[in-house]
Amino acid sequence: MTYCCALRLKEGLVFISDTRTNAGVDHISVFRKLYTYGVAGERFICIQTSGNLATTQAVIGHLENHLALGREPHLYSVNTMFELAGLVGQLLRQVIAEVTSDTLEQSNYFCSLLVGGQIKGEEMQLYNIYPQGNFICATSDTPYFQIGESKYGKPILDRALTYDMPLDKALRCCLISFDSTLRSNVSVGMPLDAMIYHKDCLLTPQGKRITEADPYFQQISRQWSETLKNGLQDLPEPTEDYFK
Amino acid sequence: MTYCCALRLKEGLVFISDTRTNAGVDHISVFRKLYTYGVAGERFICIQTSGNLATTQAVIGHLENHLALGREPHLYSVNTMFELAGLVGQLLRQVIAEVTSDTLEQSNYFCSLLVGGQIKGEEMQLYNIYPQGNFICATSDTPYFQIGESKYGKPILDRALTYDMPLDKALRCCLISFDSTLRSNVSVGMPLDAMIYHKDCLLTPQGKRITEADPYFQQISRQWSETLKNGLQDLPEPTEDYFK
Repeated sequence: MTYCCALRLKEGLVFISDTRTNAGVDHISVFRKLYTYGVAGERFICIQTSGNLATTQAVIGHLENHLALGREPHLYSVNTMFELAGLVGQLLRQVIAEVTSDTLEQSNYFCSLLVGGQIKGEEMQLYNIYPQGNFICATSDTPYFQIGESKYGKPILDRALTYDMPLDKALRCCLISFDSTLRSNVSVGMPLDAMIYHKDCLLTPQGKRITEADPYFQQISRQWSETLKNGLQDLPEPTEDYFK
Repeated sequence: MTYCCALRLKEGLVFISDTRTNAGVDHISVFRKLYTYGVAGERFICIQTSGNLATTQAVIGHLENHLALGREPHLYSVNTMFELAGLVGQLLRQVIAEVTSDTLEQSNYFCSLLVGGQIKGEEMQLYNIYPQGNFICATSDTPYFQIGESKYGKPILDRALTYDMPLDKALRCCLISFDSTLRSNVSVGMPLDAMIYHKDCLLTPQGKRITEADPYFQQISRQWSETLKNGLQDLPEPTEDYFK
């Protein structure tokens, strides 16, 4: 499986993806699931993928192929992030239709994508593209999307994340969401890829690969465990009626 | 959906279930999913259910019918918890087979059950019964089982719960697991049913129905939110390389 999370906040965008893929528990590999594209001063695009690896790679392959051959519409010719979401959705539908037939179950080849970024003159946008090729857009009410193994890491986002949160605080919240998921589900694995985009900067960040040896991640992971253990310890004793 | 959790610890057993059932989002009802049976001084049995409501009610119905008619094996005639798990599994298979045929997809009628308790002269046991009727048993390495919407509330159990934990601490951990699930998934809803059994007491506890107005649950829910928010606040700032 996979866990990818993306935030669209007042100050910018945050993207984090894991890198584990598996075809059965005895066939585990590391594959990057976070792709970036950009033209300095003009656009920044980040795509995260979850689901069938051949499908996700085919969609990314077509996007890059269109770009290389100048076949429009492509990543650098679309006028808006909305048009890009439409292009990705259309390629996704096409890839799934090509690989399946009456004898192959479509859902085995499904994937989901998160597409975020900013094009000059436009607001930042973040889209969640469904396997059917349609999509939804993040808002200030719901500033985050998750794909893949999303449930383990959802409670902390639901409790703590807000649209107005500074990027460094939101990053911590998102890293804790990953830490919880990594501990509870072996199909999500290190290293992680993280990328933080500051609103209107229109430059592609270098991004950060977070390995198991990363001192900062180790530190917050340890500290968070202590926070939870001490927090449980500090809860008041249950009232007597719980033990009747 | 549903969320049920059961713990088999050194000092006793803890069971908590939600009560929400839904057939579509516009058809939500309250149904108890925690059933207890017992003979004072001889046996205590608790069954929790998740899945198709007609299937779970049919299994419970057959168990109670067998008992009422004295048709052996029944809840009070089985010699061990292992025999009881076998009986529940067999009834479950039978109920699903009766309702389905070549034209009905079996998995739509699936349910899972947790069966825990103690019979005089035996250790306490906790079984997780699969829709296929087979089952697994909790151990000191893995002292808890969940059925239904289990993922949201799993991280806190994975981090904090141990076999040696006192019952009141384990209860708090389990209530926090429910609080996280309730906040992130509307298909799991209050009130909750909680039941704590002390090892070797061989009496059926009265149990506690936890409503939204329950002062203790409100208090720990509020305090836990503060713990998480303050804990996030106290995490060290991300190192610079995260922002490159």
